[in-house]
Amino acid sequence: MVIKVGIVGGTGYTGVELLRLLALHPSVDVQVVTSRAEKGLRVDSVYPNLRGFNDLCFVEPTMGNLQACDVVFFATPNATAMHMAKGLMSAGIKMIDLSADFRLKDVEVWEHWYGAKHVCPELLEQAVYGLPETNRESIKQAQLVANPGCYPTATQLGFLPLINNNIIDTSMLIADAKSGVSGAGRSASVVGLMSESGESFKAYGVAGHRHLPEISEQLQTVSSSPISLTFTPHLVPMIRGIHATLYAPLQDTTVDLQQLFENFYAEEPFVDVLPTGAHPDTGDVRGTNRCQIAVHRPQGGNMVTVLSVIDNLVKGASGQAIHNMNIMFGLDECTGLNQVALYP
Amino acid sequence: MVIKVGIVGGTGYTGVELLRLLALHPSVDVQVVTSRAEKGLRVDSVYPNLRGFNDLCFVEPTMGNLQACDVVFFATPNATAMHMAKGLMSAGIKMIDLSADFRLKDVEVWEHWYGAKHVCPELLEQAVYGLPETNRESIKQAQLVANPGCYPTATQLGFLPLINNNIIDTSMLIADAKSGVSGAGRSASVVGLMSESGESFKAYGVAGHRHLPEISEQLQTVSSSPISLTFTPHLVPMIRGIHATLYAPLQDTTVDLQQLFENFYAEEPFVDVLPTGAHPDTGDVRGTNRCQIAVHRPQGGNMVTVLSVIDNLVKGASGQAIHNMNIMFGLDECTGLNQVALYP
Amino acid sequence: MVIKVGIVGGTGYTGVELLRLLALHPSVDVQVVTSRAEKGLRVDSVYPNLRGFNDLCFVEPTMGNLQACDVVFFATPNATAMHMAKGLMSAGIKMIDLSADFRLKDVEVWEHWYGAKHVCPELLEQAVYGLPETNRESIKQAQLVANPGCYPTATQLGFLPLINNNIIDTSMLIADAKSGVSGAGRSASVVGLMSESGESFKAYGVAGHRHLPEISEQLQTVSSSPISLTFTPHLVPMIRGIHATLYAPLQDTTVDLQQLFENFYAEEPFVDVLPTGAHPDTGDVRGTNRCQIAVHRPQGGNMVTVLSVIDNLVKGASGQAIHNMNIMFGLDECTGLNQVALYP
Amino acid sequence: MVIKVGIVGGTGYTGVELLRLLALHPSVDVQVVTSRAEKGLRVDSVYPNLRGFNDLCFVEPTMGNLQACDVVFFATPNATAMHMAKGLMSAGIKMIDLSADFRLKDVEVWEHWYGAKHVCPELLEQAVYGLPETNRESIKQAQLVANPGCYPTATQLGFLPLINNNIIDTSMLIADAKSGVSGAGRSASVVGLMSESGESFKAYGVAGHRHLPEISEQLQTVSSSPISLTFTPHLVPMIRGIHATLYAPLQDTTVDLQQLFENFYAEEPFVDVLPTGAHPDTGDVRGTNRCQIAVHRPQGGNMVTVLSVIDNLVKGASGQAIHNMNIMFGLDECTGLNQVALYP
Repeated sequence: MVIKVGIVGGTGYTGVELLRLLALHPSVDVQVVTSRAEKGLRVDSVYPNLRGFNDLCFVEPTMGNLQACDVVFFATPNATAMHMAKGLMSAGIKMIDLSADFRLKDVEVWEHWYGAKHVCPELLEQAVYGLPETNRESIKQAQLVANPGCYPTATQLGFLPLINNNIIDTSMLIADAKSGVSGAGRSASVVGLMSESGESFKAYGVAGHRHLPEISEQLQTVSSSPISLTFTPHLVPMIRGIHATLYAPLQDTTVDLQQLFENFYAEEPFVDVLPTGAHPDTGDVRGTNRCQIAVHRPQGGNMVTVLSVIDNLVKGASGQAIHNMNIMFGLDECTGLNQVALYP
Repeated sequence: MVIKVGIVGGTGYTGVELLRLLALHPSVDVQVVTSRAEKGLRVDSVYPNLRGFNDLCFVEPTMGNLQACDVVFFATPNATAMHMAKGLMSAGIKMIDLSADFRLKDVEVWEHWYGAKHVCPELLEQAVYGLPETNRESIKQAQLVANPGCYPTATQLGFLPLINNNIIDTSMLIADAKSGVSGAGRSASVVGLMSESGESFKAYGVAGHRHLPEISEQLQTVSSSPISLTFTPHLVPMIRGIHATLYAPLQDTTVDLQQLFENFYAEEPFVDVLPTGAHPDTGDVRGTNRCQIAVHRPQGGNMVTVLSVIDNLVKGASGQAIHNMNIMFGLDECTGLNQVALYP
Repeated sequence: MVIKVGIVGGTGYTGVELLRLLALHPSVDVQVVTSRAEKGLRVDSVYPNLRGFNDLCFVEPTMGNLQACDVVFFATPNATAMHMAKGLMSAGIKMIDLSADFRLKDVEVWEHWYGAKHVCPELLEQAVYGLPETNRESIKQAQLVANPGCYPTATQLGFLPLINNNIIDTSMLIADAKSGVSGAGRSASVVGLMSESGESFKAYGVAGHRHLPEISEQLQTVSSSPISLTFTPHLVPMIRGIHATLYAPLQDTTVDLQQLFENFYAEEPFVDVLPTGAHPDTGDVRGTNRCQIAVHRPQGGNMVTVLSVIDNLVKGASGQAIHNMNIMFGLDECTGLNQVALYP
Repeated sequence: MVIKVGIVGGTGYTGVELLRLLALHPSVDVQVVTSRAEKGLRVDSVYPNLRGFNDLCFVEPTMGNLQACDVVFFATPNATAMHMAKGLMSAGIKMIDLSADFRLKDVEVWEHWYGAKHVCPELLEQAVYGLPETNRESIKQAQLVANPGCYPTATQLGFLPLINNNIIDTSMLIADAKSGVSGAGRSASVVGLMSESGESFKAYGVAGHRHLPEISEQLQTVSSSPISLTFTPHLVPMIRGIHATLYAPLQDTTVDLQQLFENFYAEEPFVDVLPTGAHPDTGDVRGTNRCQIAVHRPQGGNMVTVLSVIDNLVKGASGQAIHNMNIMFGLDECTGLNQVALYP
């Protein structure tokens, strides 16, 4: 089988990361890469790392250009994919949206946080939230997958075993999350300049970040008690990587947390629970679709601390999108995602 | 007045930072800089940034070399200063210890965390914990000042207004702290290599870090209820700076947190409470003795989030030590510490 | 004496660096800071590192706003200062231009490289090129100083002793220069993003860079033979610093190069010739107005290699501009420029 | 075919990079990884990026442990491999040395630069210098391959088309080379600390670097006139990557340099000549075995400038070693080396 792939929004970091990973995927033929701004240019003239792997030129994102695809990835800014969704759906084309357009079920919440009118709220229910560790079966059947955000991926994977086993007080969750600068995308900006974001560290969006409702909504689906989460994102002077440091008050202090986590993820190909006492390092998952997790109970107290790391562009975006594609098309889940992290 | 200064341990980062700051201090003459390893070498041959500002050579750390000093700074590894303390004290020399030897009052706790026998526990009571914002009057009278650790400085300054005003639940404090790599000092190591610590982010010491008992002991002195703190240090791929993200459950949700913080620090020259909604950036205090703080109450909920940044080598070490010296000698507190942060 | 200072273009890196340095200059009162974009905002709301040092608000760059100044610094994009020059000059106000508008004497060369019509070519002759090490006497008398570029400063200071003493073949000069990213300024851009410029190294402008004619024109003024220079700028993943590695074929191999350099700069407060065999590090001049230089003759051969480092924002821009101001106003040259480099 | 591989010195950066690349090589089974210091430990406990890809434990580097191997890679410090070479050779085992022990043909030159007595100079003649672009046929027949140094790889590939075509003055070659810090290896050191090497740039070894005789000796083998090279290495604050900026006086200014380079490397799978006017970026070859090259003739003058970038750990070390192994065992040259660079 060769899956014919289209990528809408091929000039951002998640777009070029899709191209990097799909270039060596044995069952995929990338046939269309769109970019309004770079229309007509060779893809590898914009991204010299792709020389020899891709000889396409950017085209405009039209239905005409995409209609022969089996699946279309949207690596676009928010509030873009929703405008093409109905057309692609009715043409029977599968769609994996790396933006936020279909991540929330509650359209009012979506419109509040994203500051736009949703143009196809009727598709929200149909869209499957593409976190394979929780929604594998639904993803298999899905035509439209909403690929999770980067912070939500790292945060949910850390909290899930605790919430699922009902052993923490879900009314006082804290996610102190740190991201490399590629998470802000590839748009010209002052705050993203190396002169601004290098050799510095700061929080942002403390008053409220769009990933908070996404995490809360998803965690609520598996929780028997109400979720209340304080979420603080920070910007780290590095390019790739997310580190989520998660805190929750333990309600059951008899449970073997290490065993709980290892069992919970025993069958998951992309979640790696580290040995007792470990401190995962974003550098050890760089370039891979892997989440490495460690669970601690400092000083044997009542607070559980979970450390969860991913590469924001892979497990936090493009790699997870390909994982979803593999599931949707019945391929081995790891196809094309068998990377060893680039260390150092 | 010219204060005759000695610096024991002049080749680490806190030592050279003392030299940088004291080079332009108008009331100080640095007369002795010690280093066993570099004995005989010119200081500015090891530190070319000091060329033209310092023509001393390193000497051995002996009482003979130090006896003419008015004050001696110890910029040494832990468990070093305590061996010279009695000699200096009985010679009437003031002493400011940037290491941890005199930071804890409880000698058993000290010996547990620092893995050594304390050689002069009788001095622990006499030693004044050198956080000017809490102990100014005692510092004025002190002969021996224990300069606070870097994490403890950023963390205490963030929690103090809340604890002092008795408005948080002190049994569930969280300090999620992030430090630049200079905090690990200037010793040859693998983990400190740029290849290891660059382009990566990780927590360390989650099971227990030496700064935890220091923070707890100090916060307890101002708290009417027991302090229970979860403290997670992380390593940031930058050289200077600490960012402490602090969480506490609010018990009184009627208080104006912004006003509370501004009032609490209104007279403090080195604590700068930022306007409502701000996110302090370690880059804005780089090279200065300033702590910048912002206080948030995300979504108007019950969790207060404090963001507190310092330069770990200045307010977290050498600058604070000079601030203490200024107080001990009756100088204007800001003498020699009037820097503008190096941005960008 | 208090010099009344205006700064046009206060929101770029050279503007904020002027503000940092002038905040502590004892003979200066910064009275006007202009920015069209930030008009009305407090300067320290844009630059929190200036809190407590500056309580001005940005105003528009009009003659009315600037007419009370003794001197106006232009920290503007190229082709901006020239539009206000005549007005300021006829008002008797001194002017120090940190942009390139008055650096070249040959207006055709200027118009070729800067792609604009020069609006006051008659001022080019009158403008003094503000490299104090070569033009100190002219600067004293100047009303209009053209502050040198960053690369030209590091490059000229390295070549000058060799050319002045007529011991190299000036027809085959090579300047392989490397700059931190702050040299590109504080404008939103994709190439300046940390995701693009971090963890990478590349040359740029190999075919031709605007600093090439500036260096050539200036070196020609002290050379008895024609200058032919190959100049290659590179972008280094750091914020501040320029390292120029200079090569020239030696024509006289009997000269003691170390002695030559030391003698040439013996009286210069801001040029520091390092000992034989040294490798200057940009980190050792960070935040200072100092140029550190080392001269080598590898394997005793016929090629001389000069290593020259500066902080591009200080000696390469704002510090040198203040040095020029000090000279123009008869102050001690080092006033306000007595910094120790921020190491590490 | 499955090649049984041993790696001596598995804990340095070239060792772990061999493990990363070989983990996914379809014709290789890594059977032995040695480390005296880490003997007995699981490889993936030291390198968590290898979890799931390698379940070996480190063993001692003895003949007994290595005798079943088809090929042994030495990723050891200099002057180590030579002690095991005779034993392996007489056992009929192929050997690829990533250190410098067999790179020079002239034993006196080797002993001068490496400060040791060579224990098997009789093997120097037999050893094949493993730059496939020049020595492919000899490598096919070799039992002992001396894998080139990182700087020599980038430098030779840039100069080769010019020297081979006899169009430059080889008596005045300049290689201004810049390397990421991983080139210094994974040994505890002060100079390698991020606090020292981050946010700074400096040259080193200007008086003489061990890669100079290697480059000269190799270039001389293809040059009809004597090679005289000035080589200046610099340290870049990034982890991976080498950028060599090469200068040579053109003797024939009629030649089409772009065409010359494209023709010269037309058949080479790992040398990619960029289009006219390009500036290769180390980031575009990160993690790959590719060399990207651009050739310039600034201002149409007589100096040719070549820009050549590689990943020092891949094309400059472990990737090239695997390329050599592929050639030695008759595999497709690109087997296991088909990576897309990790951008950003």
